[in-house]
Amino acid sequence: MEIDFQKAGGLVPAIIQDQRTGDVLMLGFMNPEAFAQTQRTGEVVFFSRSRNELWKKGETSGHVLKVLELRVDCDADALLVRVEPMGPGVCHEGYRSCFFRELDPEGSGRIVAERAFAPEKVYAKEKSQ
Amino acid sequence: MEIDFQKAGGLVPAIIQDQRTGDVLMLGFMNPEAFAQTQRTGEVVFFSRSRNELWKKGETSGHVLKVLELRVDCDADALLVRVEPMGPGVCHEGYRSCFFRELDPEGSGRIVAERAFAPEKVYAKEKSQ
Repeated sequence: MEIDFQKAGGLVPAIIQDQRTGDVLMLGFMNPEAFAQTQRTGEVVFFSRSRNELWKKGETSGHVLKVLELRVDCDADALLVRVEPMGPGVCHEGYRSCFFRELDPEGSGRIVAERAFAPEKVYAKEKSQ
Repeated sequence: MEIDFQKAGGLVPAIIQDQRTGDVLMLGFMNPEAFAQTQRTGEVVFFSRSRNELWKKGETSGHVLKVLELRVDCDADALLVRVEPMGPGVCHEGYRSCFFRELDPEGSGRIVAERAFAPEKVYAKEKSQ
């Protein structure tokens, strides 16, 4: 089946979920080459919108995301990548998941997770998307 | 905190996760108005990219998504909406989750879920995004 990269301007959103815990870890985008590399290598590769280049998750930190299952939605314009995370967390701020803040009704963000690692020690240059 | 709607051209991707089971049900997009309505009403409202209009999930089917928790990621450019789904499924093809197909390494999609309802009976006009 064909993935629809056109609906979001050449990119497809990819939800990263920890297969073991069910936690949603992050959302990234893939272009056709990132998607092909993810399929071929079994490790998640995104396309960084801010840096405009392929971005192998964990290339700096070593915290790669091992693909266990790749799912596609009904319209083939979104991916769900179920992974085993190789490391304590995926977030460049040091959390296990990038979704570490809860929004309250007034719109302020409250941190609802604990730091899993010290980002300054593992990231020299890897940034978020 | 401010949600970054600009990074994806006025929209922010919103992952819908069943709070009870942890299953990822679908991915939609919200513009500022859809996001505000979601916060105000406690039920998920998307912006339909194909129809270019607000899209209250469940307006036809009755299968609304009750918001239990709204999370935002580190860059404030993606949302994770943890919900209680009011109904047997969210997918216009009749599945509980839109991610009902697994991609094998050759790229073909294999259905890995069972139909939860008969879509022709509940959808008159509500379509996917």
